[in-house]
Amino acid sequence: MSPHRQPPLPHIVVIGAGFGGMAFCQDFPAKLARITLIDRQNHHLFQPLLYQVAAAGLSAVDIAQPVRAIFGARPNFDVIMAEVTGIDLAARCVRHAQGELTYDYLVVAAGGVTSYFGHPEWEQFAPGLKTLDDALLIRRRILMAFERAEIETDAAKRDAAMTIVVVGGGPTGVELAGTFAELTRTVLVRDFDHIDPSKARVILLEGSPRVLAVYPPDLSASAQRQLEHLGVEVHTNTRVESISEGVVVAGGQSIRSDNIVWGAGVAAVPLAKQLGTETDRAGRVKVLPDLSLPGHPEVFAIGDISTLVDAKGVTVPGIAPGAMQEGAHVAKLLVREIRGEKFAPVGRAAFAYFDKGTMATIGRSAAVAQVGRFHFSGFPAWIAWLGVHLLFLVSFRSKLSVLIQWTYSYFTYKRGARVITGAMGGPPSHSA
Amino acid sequence: MSPHRQPPLPHIVVIGAGFGGMAFCQDFPAKLARITLIDRQNHHLFQPLLYQVAAAGLSAVDIAQPVRAIFGARPNFDVIMAEVTGIDLAARCVRHAQGELTYDYLVVAAGGVTSYFGHPEWEQFAPGLKTLDDALLIRRRILMAFERAEIETDAAKRDAAMTIVVVGGGPTGVELAGTFAELTRTVLVRDFDHIDPSKARVILLEGSPRVLAVYPPDLSASAQRQLEHLGVEVHTNTRVESISEGVVVAGGQSIRSDNIVWGAGVAAVPLAKQLGTETDRAGRVKVLPDLSLPGHPEVFAIGDISTLVDAKGVTVPGIAPGAMQEGAHVAKLLVREIRGEKFAPVGRAAFAYFDKGTMATIGRSAAVAQVGRFHFSGFPAWIAWLGVHLLFLVSFRSKLSVLIQWTYSYFTYKRGARVITGAMGGPPSHSA
Repeated sequence: MSPHRQPPLPHIVVIGAGFGGMAFCQDFPAKLARITLIDRQNHHLFQPLLYQVAAAGLSAVDIAQPVRAIFGARPNFDVIMAEVTGIDLAARCVRHAQGELTYDYLVVAAGGVTSYFGHPEWEQFAPGLKTLDDALLIRRRILMAFERAEIETDAAKRDAAMTIVVVGGGPTGVELAGTFAELTRTVLVRDFDHIDPSKARVILLEGSPRVLAVYPPDLSASAQRQLEHLGVEVHTNTRVESISEGVVVAGGQSIRSDNIVWGAGVAAVPLAKQLGTETDRAGRVKVLPDLSLPGHPEVFAIGDISTLVDAKGVTVPGIAPGAMQEGAHVAKLLVREIRGEKFAPVGRAAFAYFDKGTMATIGRSAAVAQVGRFHFSGFPAWIAWLGVHLLFLVSFRSKLSVLIQWTYSYFTYKRGARVITGAMGGPPSHSA
Repeated sequence: MSPHRQPPLPHIVVIGAGFGGMAFCQDFPAKLARITLIDRQNHHLFQPLLYQVAAAGLSAVDIAQPVRAIFGARPNFDVIMAEVTGIDLAARCVRHAQGELTYDYLVVAAGGVTSYFGHPEWEQFAPGLKTLDDALLIRRRILMAFERAEIETDAAKRDAAMTIVVVGGGPTGVELAGTFAELTRTVLVRDFDHIDPSKARVILLEGSPRVLAVYPPDLSASAQRQLEHLGVEVHTNTRVESISEGVVVAGGQSIRSDNIVWGAGVAAVPLAKQLGTETDRAGRVKVLPDLSLPGHPEVFAIGDISTLVDAKGVTVPGIAPGAMQEGAHVAKLLVREIRGEKFAPVGRAAFAYFDKGTMATIGRSAAVAQVGRFHFSGFPAWIAWLGVHLLFLVSFRSKLSVLIQWTYSYFTYKRGARVITGAMGGPPSHSA
């Protein structure tokens, strides 16, 4: 290229500051294009640790990083905090609450929402865990329930307040159940005089024959043993029929509980529908091998909003590494195109997911991990999990603060984050 | 006393887990009485640092400590999280949302609320700063306003979003104004592309001729200079006439602002009225020299809910040390009575406030302090303020976390806590 040629920079709009969107932005060189990152929140969230906020192990700020703090100093980079209301593919325009943005390239990384499989009426009783506000709501409800139990004279009501039901035995459900068992048995147990929180029931309901169904059977079995060791009642092959002030499972058995948490379903955000492309049952957009939309090579959908069977025949899993690798792939591909190498003989490269291994934590010193052919359980898996998650945390401050908090918790079993905010003015408890 | 004599322990009910109530509980020996501490929140709040949460310098958990974590292990000690709904002095009974408690002694330390001097309609536009939820609301509103300003095309609306008005030039108002000036000029300034947060107006309105009117005039003048140096527009002799989507001051001048914070008035909680005793203009109960209610030697009112001209003729100031000394005084006095020394010749001792000095912070390296005849300003006052406030923080964890956060902020000017929670689902901004 001639050094004197100065075409206007192309404009890339990125929707979503989750793992996919952030990976794209971080990998894309600052000088090649103007980027506008738009998100309804002002922060990037380290979602794999959200369950720790729900269980009062970490505070909200520990796992969230303001997007402006990450990209504030970068040239050719705009951040807009607003909800995207529409995408006009023909006009190459993204509409949001306060205006609109035209783009040359669009990266849709808007993520997923909790899905109740056609039962939206369950949401008020069984919040899901996708946002910081979800986590703070769950934390508030559970801590408030134990406060109520402490002064409740009716035994049935007290038991309901001290029963935590987690619906769904995937990684989120397993993490939540394990951490709630620890919270009640090692932290809250020292706080109350009239109730014994170590007697609180923590129940994990899974519809399929085993927890962590995407893991190999030996690790599922190990996870269940580790959960039971922590005090969790694990019920597999147990489908939920209805949820209100308790859970009714298939067969008619009913469990009364003031603390039901939904960890069972995730679907793409409704925005996915506007992309005019075929979706799967969970509303995820079926993208082409290069992650672009059919008929719109300038639009990409990555992370939980899309689904792809990759070049190796593997369905890309809906986890952070999948989204991050997709973001990096699109960045690399657009760099080549914008630099004018787009007519290289091989065309656009197909995305291939690289499986570095997967892990799920269950509690203190308890986890399962799979790396290639190797399976780990218990303390070694937990140490691996801890290391990987600390490494991934975006900022120094968070890393240090989380490390201190965990070290402190590990040795003292105290949890500093069990502060109830928004309690009296917040949403009413459905059992009050 | 005979070692075999085992009368049932007297029951002391303490309303409020603020500085007064906590000081009483901490000073009262565990074996002499049964104590029930009741509070509508589950945490003790380090209120002097609440303005730092509002200005995104600290996170909520840093300055709050769950009450159960402090007293959980103590024998003869109950904690109830519930709102007190009534006090029946004749029946010696405290009613709360979930039941009632009879007492032998009652310590009412329920604190204060924001007062709008008969203008409750101002509250929605100008939140006060008494609780964690207040602080989180103010933080959310201000951060959201700058997000709106970044994409606002109407200049007047943008200016309103970038104007922060603090009403009241007392310690809280001065701290808020100073910290907001720092937040805009050193933190937010690096985050935005289309607005210049260093041009944001921070206006402090004070009705009297000087800020920090309870301090000596030289320190008031120094505080004003330090504020102006940080970029705050200080308007003394300026009374507020009305507040809606802006502030109208006496004389008719109007300042449009989306970010009005009320730091002007505090009154006793409404519960004070139930004590059947004369109150001052701010609703504070006039207590006897020993801090008990006239006609009810078994009931004490301490902290912001009461007012007293002490044995030395000094009106006890409505600050943490005043409440703490009162709590300690009542503890000492009840210990003597319960041990059977109540007919000692001198009777109950009158409370005397010991003034260790007062200090107000203005910003990084900026503060004023008065210790006896000595007046300090600027960096030495700020170091003193920092040391005292770190020492006072209840728990090790908070201390370490706050220290790290402040050290980090001091050298980098970054603020980790500027995460907006409850944004989309939260209370609507009045200017939207």
